[in-house]
Amino acid sequence: MKSNNKWFITVSLAALVCLMTAGAAQAVPHAKYVFLFIGDGMGSVQINATEAYLANKVRRDEVGGVDKAELLRMSKLSVQGMCTTFPYNSYITDSAPAATALATGKKTADGVISMDPTKTIPYATIAEQAKAAGMKVGIISSVSIDHATPACFYAHEPLRGSYHNIGHQAYASGFDFFGGGGFKAVDGPLGNVLTAAQAAGYVVADTKAEIDALKPGQKAIAINPVLDDLKNDKALFYDIDRTYAVANDSAQADNHLTLAQFTSRAVSLLEKGKGFFLMVEGGKVDWACHANDARTVFDDMAAFDDAIGVALKFMHKHPRETLIVVTGDHETGGMTIGWAGTAYASYFEKLENQKISYVEFDKIWNAYKTACGAGCPADLEDALKTQINTLFGLDYTTLNNFEKLRLEDAYDKSLGRTSPNLPEEDALLYGTNTPLTVTITHILNKKAGIAWTSYAHTGVPVPVLAHGYGAGTFNGFYDNTDVAKKIAKAMRLTLPN
Amino acid sequence: MKSNNKWFITVSLAALVCLMTAGAAQAVPHAKYVFLFIGDGMGSVQINATEAYLANKVRRDEVGGVDKAELLRMSKLSVQGMCTTFPYNSYITDSAPAATALATGKKTADGVISMDPTKTIPYATIAEQAKAAGMKVGIISSVSIDHATPACFYAHEPLRGSYHNIGHQAYASGFDFFGGGGFKAVDGPLGNVLTAAQAAGYVVADTKAEIDALKPGQKAIAINPVLDDLKNDKALFYDIDRTYAVANDSAQADNHLTLAQFTSRAVSLLEKGKGFFLMVEGGKVDWACHANDARTVFDDMAAFDDAIGVALKFMHKHPRETLIVVTGDHETGGMTIGWAGTAYASYFEKLENQKISYVEFDKIWNAYKTACGAGCPADLEDALKTQINTLFGLDYTTLNNFEKLRLEDAYDKSLGRTSPNLPEEDALLYGTNTPLTVTITHILNKKAGIAWTSYAHTGVPVPVLAHGYGAGTFNGFYDNTDVAKKIAKAMRLTLPN
Repeated sequence: MKSNNKWFITVSLAALVCLMTAGAAQAVPHAKYVFLFIGDGMGSVQINATEAYLANKVRRDEVGGVDKAELLRMSKLSVQGMCTTFPYNSYITDSAPAATALATGKKTADGVISMDPTKTIPYATIAEQAKAAGMKVGIISSVSIDHATPACFYAHEPLRGSYHNIGHQAYASGFDFFGGGGFKAVDGPLGNVLTAAQAAGYVVADTKAEIDALKPGQKAIAINPVLDDLKNDKALFYDIDRTYAVANDSAQADNHLTLAQFTSRAVSLLEKGKGFFLMVEGGKVDWACHANDARTVFDDMAAFDDAIGVALKFMHKHPRETLIVVTGDHETGGMTIGWAGTAYASYFEKLENQKISYVEFDKIWNAYKTACGAGCPADLEDALKTQINTLFGLDYTTLNNFEKLRLEDAYDKSLGRTSPNLPEEDALLYGTNTPLTVTITHILNKKAGIAWTSYAHTGVPVPVLAHGYGAGTFNGFYDNTDVAKKIAKAMRLTLPN
Repeated sequence: MKSNNKWFITVSLAALVCLMTAGAAQAVPHAKYVFLFIGDGMGSVQINATEAYLANKVRRDEVGGVDKAELLRMSKLSVQGMCTTFPYNSYITDSAPAATALATGKKTADGVISMDPTKTIPYATIAEQAKAAGMKVGIISSVSIDHATPACFYAHEPLRGSYHNIGHQAYASGFDFFGGGGFKAVDGPLGNVLTAAQAAGYVVADTKAEIDALKPGQKAIAINPVLDDLKNDKALFYDIDRTYAVANDSAQADNHLTLAQFTSRAVSLLEKGKGFFLMVEGGKVDWACHANDARTVFDDMAAFDDAIGVALKFMHKHPRETLIVVTGDHETGGMTIGWAGTAYASYFEKLENQKISYVEFDKIWNAYKTACGAGCPADLEDALKTQINTLFGLDYTTLNNFEKLRLEDAYDKSLGRTSPNLPEEDALLYGTNTPLTVTITHILNKKAGIAWTSYAHTGVPVPVLAHGYGAGTFNGFYDNTDVAKKIAKAMRLTLPN
C-alpha cells in the first residue's frame, strides 16, 4: 500500500517535471558547463598540509588545526569523495594510465595515452564525446600541453614520451582551446606542430597581448610568454618562482600568467554555445612532490585552488548547469604532516622564509659549480651558506651535527666528489635530484614536521571533490575509472565500451 | 507552481508515513543498534594497503590493484566519508583528544580524557547519553579497557595515564559490557578495580568458559584469558601472534579470543531491550604502526574487519534500526604504498613469510641478549640470521651492503655497544623501538614497497565509513567532532553544549 502510493507519487512527479521542461530549449537537465580540475600528484595530504600551512601563517596561536573557514575552496565543495588510482598492471600508477582512467573510464598500462593495455585500441575520451555532441572543449595545464595528463584527453599514443606525435594530435582533435605550457617536441618528422596548428586554423598566442586579444569562435593555443625550460620542460614557472619574479620586477606579471588567468580566459572564450568541457591541470604539484619540496607544493596548490575559484565564480551565472569536479590523478611523494624527528609537533612557519623552488636553486647551484669548477672549496663556504639561509630560511648555524653532515655530504656529491656513503644510501637520499638541493628541502621540510617516503608516486587513494549539477554521485569511495563515468553521466554523454 | 506542488506532495507523504508508524511501539525512527568501530591509527592507507596485500596474496598475476570484490568489508559499506583529526592545540592528535572528539563531539587538548582543554569540565559522551536513554552500552578494545580510546567513552580524567582512576570509572559508569584487554592499574589508592567492580554488581570473566557463561542482564567485564604483558600492556596478542600460537597448539584458541568473538558475545548479551551502543576498538593497529611493522598491521586490520563482519551479520536481523560507523582516530606512522627505493613497484608477497610481530621478536631478542651477555658475538651470528629468516622471511644473504650495514649497526645498538652513527641519526633510525627489531621490519617493509615517515601519529585525514540507518549523513569531508554529532542525531540523542 505504502510503496504503491510512493510509486504513484514518484511517477506523477516525474510526469510533472517532464511536462514543465518540454517547452524549454534543453529537454533533459544535464551538466552543460563542466570543469575537471586535476591536481597532478595531489592526495588528501597535499590539500590538508597546504591548508595547515596557510592557517598557521595567518594565526600564530596555541590553537591548532584548520577551521572550516580556512579550508581551500576545493575542501568546501559540497561533495567530498575518494577514489583508488591503480593502473591495469600494478598498484602504483603513472600519470598516463591515471589520466586515461579520468578521461575515458578505462584502465590501461603504465605509459599509455588513452589506448588499451596492448596499445592497439584507442579509447574515446569525455572531451572527444563532448566535442562530438557540439560542446566546446578546453585543455589547460601548468606543464606542457603534450604532457601525459592533458594528452590523455585528446591523444591516443602507445608511449607518453612520443611528444611530437602527441603535439600533432592536439590541433587534430579540433578542440577549441589549449592553454598553459608549450610543446616539448615542436619540430620532428611530422613537421612543426605550431605551424601545422596554424594551417589547421588555430591562432597561436604566446604574449599576454595576443592571449588577451583572442576572440570567441577562434580556435586557440595560448602558451605562457615565459616557460621554465631547465630540462626542456615547456612549463609555467612554479607559483613560488612566479611570485618571486614579479616581486623583483612587477613587469614580469605579464610574462607569467597564472593558472587562474588561463582558466578565466578559457571560460570567456568557450562560454557561448552548447556548453563546454574544460580540463585544468595543476601539473607541477606532482613535480614539486617528486622533488620533496613542500613549500613549492603549497604555493602551486594555492594557485590551483585559485583556478577553482574562477569556476566557482562562473557557476554563479549558471548555477544549475555547471558541474565542477576536482581530483588528483595519484599521490606523489608519500607526503605526511608528521615526521619521526618532530613526532606530534608541527612548525609550518619554518617554510615561510623559502623564496624559490628547488628548480631555481638548481639554476643557482649549476652557476656556482661552473664558476668554481675544479677549485670549488672542500666544504660548503660561507657565501653559499648565506645564500641557503636567504633563499630557504635555513640557517646553517642552527643545524645539528647530523644535518650538517648530510648537507656537507650532499655538497660533495653534487660536485661529483667521492661520497662517504654506500651507493644504495645515496640513491635513497637523493633520488634523481641534485643532492644539495634535495637535502636542503628535506632538512627544511623535516624541521617543519613534514616528511616524504618516496620520489615517485604512491598507491594512496585520492580525493574526488564535486559541486553543482550531478555532484551527488561523487560521494563515497570508488575507482578513478568511475570518475569519468560519473562525469559522462552528468553530461548525458556516452563513453563507448 | 512546481515547487508548490512538490511541497504539497512532500507534506502529504510525511503525513502518510506518520499515520502508518503511529501505531508502532517506536514512534520516531532512529538508530536503535549502533556500532562504532574505531581503528586506532587507521588512515586510508592502512585500509588500502591491507586490501592490496590480501589481493596480491590470492592472485599472483600481472594485473594490479584491488577489485571491488576483494575490498575489506569496511570499504564496501554504503557510505565512505573522511574527517580531520586535529586536537584543540595542534595539528597532530594523540588518542585522548581524538577519542574525546568521537565520543563527545568536542575538541580537547592532548592527553585529556573527555574533559575540556582546561581539564576542569567533563564532557558528556554518546555512550553515557545512550545509557541515560535506557539503552545498553558495551565497550570493547583489543588493548586495555582503561586505555585512552575506550576510556573516553566512560571516563573523565585530566591525564590519560591515570589508569587507576580510569579503571574505577569503568564500573561506576554502569555500562553493561566491557570486553577485550584488562586493566593496567588494578591495585592502587582507590582499592582493587576488579573487586570494586564485583561489589558494584559486575561479573568479572577471564576464561573462555566464564565469558561463554555470561547471561543477558548481567553486567560484565570480559577479559581475554591470556594478555600480552611485555610492557604491562594488558592487551590482546597481535592477531599474527594469536594465529602463530594457535597454529603451534590448537588448545591456545581458548586462550586467545578474537575481537570478532568479543563483539559477537557483546551483541548476544546486549541485544534485548531498548537497543544498544557498542564501541569496538582495534587498538593494536596503532601500536603496530608506531613500530612500523606493516604485516602485523595487516593481520590486525583483518581481525578488526572480522569484528565489523559480526555487526553486518547482526544487521540482517534489524536492517532498518542498525547503524554501523567505522573510523580511525588518526593515522599512525605515515604509512604509504610506495617507497623511494622501490618507486612504482610493489612486492607485497615479501611480507607473507613473516610469522610473528615485532613484540614477539623483542621477547626472543631479549632472551638471546640475556643468554650471551657480555659474550655476545661481535657481529650477527648465523643462528640469529637463520632465525630472522625463519620468522620474517628476510634472508641475510639477499641483502645489499647498505641493508647489511643497517642490520649490523642495529645489532650493536641493541646490545648497548657504540654506534658508528650520530645520536640524531640513531634517534631517527630506531625511535624508541628495539633497534634490531625495527631495522628488520623496516628492511622487510621497504622490500615490499611500503614505507613510513614517523613512529608517531600524523595529521593525515581519516576515513569515516557508515552503513544502515542515518548512514547518509556520513558522506563528505568534515571534522572528527562531527562524527559524534552525526551518531547522536541518528540515535535521537542530545550531546549537551
